[in-house]
Amino acid sequence: MELSNRQEKIIEIVKHNGPITGEHIAERLNLTRATLRPDLAILTMAGFLDARPRVGYFYTGKTGSELLTEKIKKYKVQEYHSVPIVVQESASVYDAISTMFLEDVGTLSIIDENSCLTGVVSRKDLLRAAIGNQDLSALPVHIIMTRMPNITVCRKEDFIIDVAKQLINKQIDGLPVVKDTPNGLEVIGRITKTTITKVFVELITDNQI
Amino acid sequence: MELSNRQEKIIEIVKHNGPITGEHIAERLNLTRATLRPDLAILTMAGFLDARPRVGYFYTGKTGSELLTEKIKKYKVQEYHSVPIVVQESASVYDAISTMFLEDVGTLSIIDENSCLTGVVSRKDLLRAAIGNQDLSALPVHIIMTRMPNITVCRKEDFIIDVAKQLINKQIDGLPVVKDTPNGLEVIGRITKTTITKVFVELITDNQI
Repeated sequence: MELSNRQEKIIEIVKHNGPITGEHIAERLNLTRATLRPDLAILTMAGFLDARPRVGYFYTGKTGSELLTEKIKKYKVQEYHSVPIVVQESASVYDAISTMFLEDVGTLSIIDENSCLTGVVSRKDLLRAAIGNQDLSALPVHIIMTRMPNITVCRKEDFIIDVAKQLINKQIDGLPVVKDTPNGLEVIGRITKTTITKVFVELITDNQI
Repeated sequence: MELSNRQEKIIEIVKHNGPITGEHIAERLNLTRATLRPDLAILTMAGFLDARPRVGYFYTGKTGSELLTEKIKKYKVQEYHSVPIVVQESASVYDAISTMFLEDVGTLSIIDENSCLTGVVSRKDLLRAAIGNQDLSALPVHIIMTRMPNITVCRKEDFIIDVAKQLINKQIDGLPVVKDTPNGLEVIGRITKTTITKVFVELITDNQI
């Protein structure tokens, strides 16, 4: 975020004279309160200033770098997750492999007849099964999946940074985004290392506070 | 990076009076030039100020947020890449799968008898071969690999952000880091979506300009 000259001046005034009312800031700049309103709104939303009713504006003392980090910390799963790719637990390993190729994903969520999450399978799980000299179309996927409760999941209100840490710490490529229902966990999306790489690229390419 | 009070004051002075010499900044603060030297060095290294010999200090006009982004843009492959995991092109697909499980990686680099890069295989390639009803221990890995020149590679002086963009745009999980030799490309490492996810976590957890 590039601050205008006037916005820089406002920050200076608040830094040295805060708490200060909008009227007093306007006076010092020989402007009307109405003219200043958009700038004050932007500076408050961006986190440079804090406003308290009947007291005035404070300088938060935060640098742009801290504000950027704080903003990234607040990125939530719901803003970035991909669509869920699910397979019934009664499906064969062969069907699961076909779905993985068709959808071009690295991890599948496995669900029961109530559409609730019972397990996950990764490309690694499928590869292990595929070299096992078994009939893959006769082998149900639930036999080879990692099953509840040994699955790491996240919810849409979780923070992206916490999910990224889980992917690294647990050495997994992706995890399901779930919603609690009376029958169990409904799968509503997925977050993968691809998601995090996209967030990283977007962050650098399109940096705004 | 948290600026000290004195550093903030220096930035203010330079912003309003630059170009200004170190002596003049010191005068305004009632300090000696020697006392100020560390602060000026820090502010110049961090990019807030710019110094020109015989002219003085300028304010660069960059906010912390822009400086952070600029810093991330300069992250290089050599600071972050993992060790290379390679397999000879004469090895069997079965051996390649074993290596992938042993080393727990998603992508292998395939090399010739001169240790030069000739191809790459992903978990997806191996899974496709594994369901193909072939004798995996009799099938050489070079038959199923993606081969040069259809491989995306990077070099140690490349920027991490450019590699991250390639991973997204080409929909691949990782790519080899190579070095040019008279015989061809020597594989010296790999960058994967795991690498990028780690950089992202590190960036937020340990934010410094």
